[in-house]
Amino acid sequence: MTPPTAAVLPEELLRTHRDVRWTEFSPDMLPAGVAGTDMATAPVVLEAIERLVRDQDFGYPLRNGRPAGEALAAAFSRRMARLYGWQADAAAVVPVADLVQGVTATIMAFTAPGDSVAAHMPSYQPFRTATAATGRRFVPMPLRANGDRYELDLQQAREAFSSGVRLFILCNPHNPTGRVFTRAELQALVELAQEFDVVIVSDEIHSDLVLDGREHVPVAALGPEAAARTVTLTSATKSFNLPALRTAVMHFGSEALLRTFERHFPPRLLGQLSAMGIDATIAAWDHGDPWLDAFRLHLGQMRDRLHDRLAAEAPLVGFTPIEGTFMAWLDFGRHLPEGGAGAFLQEQAKVGAYGGDIFGEDYSRHARLVFGTSRELLDAMIDRIVAALRRNAR
Amino acid sequence: MTPPTAAVLPEELLRTHRDVRWTEFSPDMLPAGVAGTDMATAPVVLEAIERLVRDQDFGYPLRNGRPAGEALAAAFSRRMARLYGWQADAAAVVPVADLVQGVTATIMAFTAPGDSVAAHMPSYQPFRTATAATGRRFVPMPLRANGDRYELDLQQAREAFSSGVRLFILCNPHNPTGRVFTRAELQALVELAQEFDVVIVSDEIHSDLVLDGREHVPVAALGPEAAARTVTLTSATKSFNLPALRTAVMHFGSEALLRTFERHFPPRLLGQLSAMGIDATIAAWDHGDPWLDAFRLHLGQMRDRLHDRLAAEAPLVGFTPIEGTFMAWLDFGRHLPEGGAGAFLQEQAKVGAYGGDIFGEDYSRHARLVFGTSRELLDAMIDRIVAALRRNAR
Repeated sequence: MTPPTAAVLPEELLRTHRDVRWTEFSPDMLPAGVAGTDMATAPVVLEAIERLVRDQDFGYPLRNGRPAGEALAAAFSRRMARLYGWQADAAAVVPVADLVQGVTATIMAFTAPGDSVAAHMPSYQPFRTATAATGRRFVPMPLRANGDRYELDLQQAREAFSSGVRLFILCNPHNPTGRVFTRAELQALVELAQEFDVVIVSDEIHSDLVLDGREHVPVAALGPEAAARTVTLTSATKSFNLPALRTAVMHFGSEALLRTFERHFPPRLLGQLSAMGIDATIAAWDHGDPWLDAFRLHLGQMRDRLHDRLAAEAPLVGFTPIEGTFMAWLDFGRHLPEGGAGAFLQEQAKVGAYGGDIFGEDYSRHARLVFGTSRELLDAMIDRIVAALRRNAR
Repeated sequence: MTPPTAAVLPEELLRTHRDVRWTEFSPDMLPAGVAGTDMATAPVVLEAIERLVRDQDFGYPLRNGRPAGEALAAAFSRRMARLYGWQADAAAVVPVADLVQGVTATIMAFTAPGDSVAAHMPSYQPFRTATAATGRRFVPMPLRANGDRYELDLQQAREAFSSGVRLFILCNPHNPTGRVFTRAELQALVELAQEFDVVIVSDEIHSDLVLDGREHVPVAALGPEAAARTVTLTSATKSFNLPALRTAVMHFGSEALLRTFERHFPPRLLGQLSAMGIDATIAAWDHGDPWLDAFRLHLGQMRDRLHDRLAAEAPLVGFTPIEGTFMAWLDFGRHLPEGGAGAFLQEQAKVGAYGGDIFGEDYSRHARLVFGTSRELLDAMIDRIVAALRRNAR
């Protein structure tokens, strides 16, 4: 059997898509904004979807005679054991539509209004909006910039946790900086969480996308004490480019966490998932690893291309080492573009990347650029950025 | 253009389905249990699903540049205006996965633990389980049997409402009795709800399936005062046989109801829906009416077949007049089958209909039989029932 390739969809097809990626900016801009990719669906995943459609198997979904959500939970559990040697209990899995739903629900279940919720900065915006929408107080924990690299600041984490933080939202691999935290870093964070009795909500949605053979370490896999305070959130929708299917899971690392959650949310309140999303995710998790290998290879090549061309043609742009994800965190500060990096990219370069201010008010000199696309489209974006920087410099 | 036909899927394909309908009972039984049908997907709906799959349009879904849920809300609003002259505000629509999610959420938003929630009996079981799961008290309001027909009992409704009921779950067309309540009946109920300040949650999921040219009247369409206390729940999944897609809507008949709901549930807590479900539902609601005409015709024929054959071959089985839905509410009391009608049908006739006790403890002599299938399968079920009754009578 030949190994699967991870193909990018043709640009003319992508331009017909009705998704955020291809419609959030005007058509004269190249999309690099929302955290999605241009990858074609992995064949094993597409087959699962096509089977449902071909058979019109659209009744109330069971799998192996049980509610389909249980099959999703079992697939998650199998995969965690296979990839990480982590025995994640399928009975402790709650399917949800997406990670924002999961984050919102965990905040409500494990904290009270007025409590403090922390996350690293820069941060995925919904962590902050979910905290505000539920009437909690957001405590920013800035990652420490060491040159272009971002590192944990454990002293500052200690100060934050000791100030009364009840819940900490970890994002690993980290969006938007592309850091993949090491086992030692995670262990140190968990020890602090234990010391101050902080619940960890661990967004690991980019865990399949660690590059250069790095290791992803699920926080809950660090040991029973780590698991006992950790809710893990993940989904196949980033790795396999399936956000339209709205399918994710939450895993509760202890009976006590699960019971607390269930006390807050009666059965069925959080909804159920489509059979499409469930079947696609199970296929991805059970049979998608060879495709993921090919996708990671492609991502590494695109990351290198972006790095090498910027280093050669726009050396003043700061380039945060990308250890994982399909997103680059670029620092345009040495160019000091007026109005911030986002406005510069969108208005002058016609590249639809998000300005860093979306990820925190201190980051307007940065931009997050999604590179999960073809070499042709990536090159076109780089061409535009380099040309705009040169126009600016004149 | 030839009018579409409403086709039933071939039995050999149905037997491969992994849904509740075809797997909840053993393969030697004919399925008539869960409230779904054997209908092939309406061509306009299938096209919408196939387009997504063909184009691999699986990114974060927008429609017309706005979140896809808004397009679903707009389609609901358009349809209510077209079918009923009801100007349902799209901005007052909240998409949910299914009606049980909606019922659970409305109970939590509009009542407090310990409060009373009422519904007609016999009743769809999840109304009672959702009430119990949220710590509310269920107040049964038995429909009054007038021969084989079920009618509203307004005196008893007055007693229930005056006893402190805060929320009333209406189901119209009524599952399991197949009643389609008249405008006058609904008006009387609404007046009682006004008198005792009861919120109405109106499950209208079978509203497309009113037979013999009857009129469906959305409660919220009765007028501004009715709307102001009504949350309407509906979905295309019953009419178009799409439960696997998990797509439904809640409509709040007043700003005050919507605000109360939003105070209880922050954005994103209740999840988001798959693009498949949204596109399929929009296609069904915008373009599915000709197919529905054909489906209603088929349902009427199956209803008549069931009625005529039972009247001729099993005249002691009571037959509740079926004004809507694809379900018959049959009374086997004159046969007094041991263990109830459900056990009799399942064990002796090998027909997988639900015993009436699922719909309330007083109804074990009844069974609910789903007839949304082919004449061949329906005839086979009737053959089995008639033969089992004859064996029993010997």
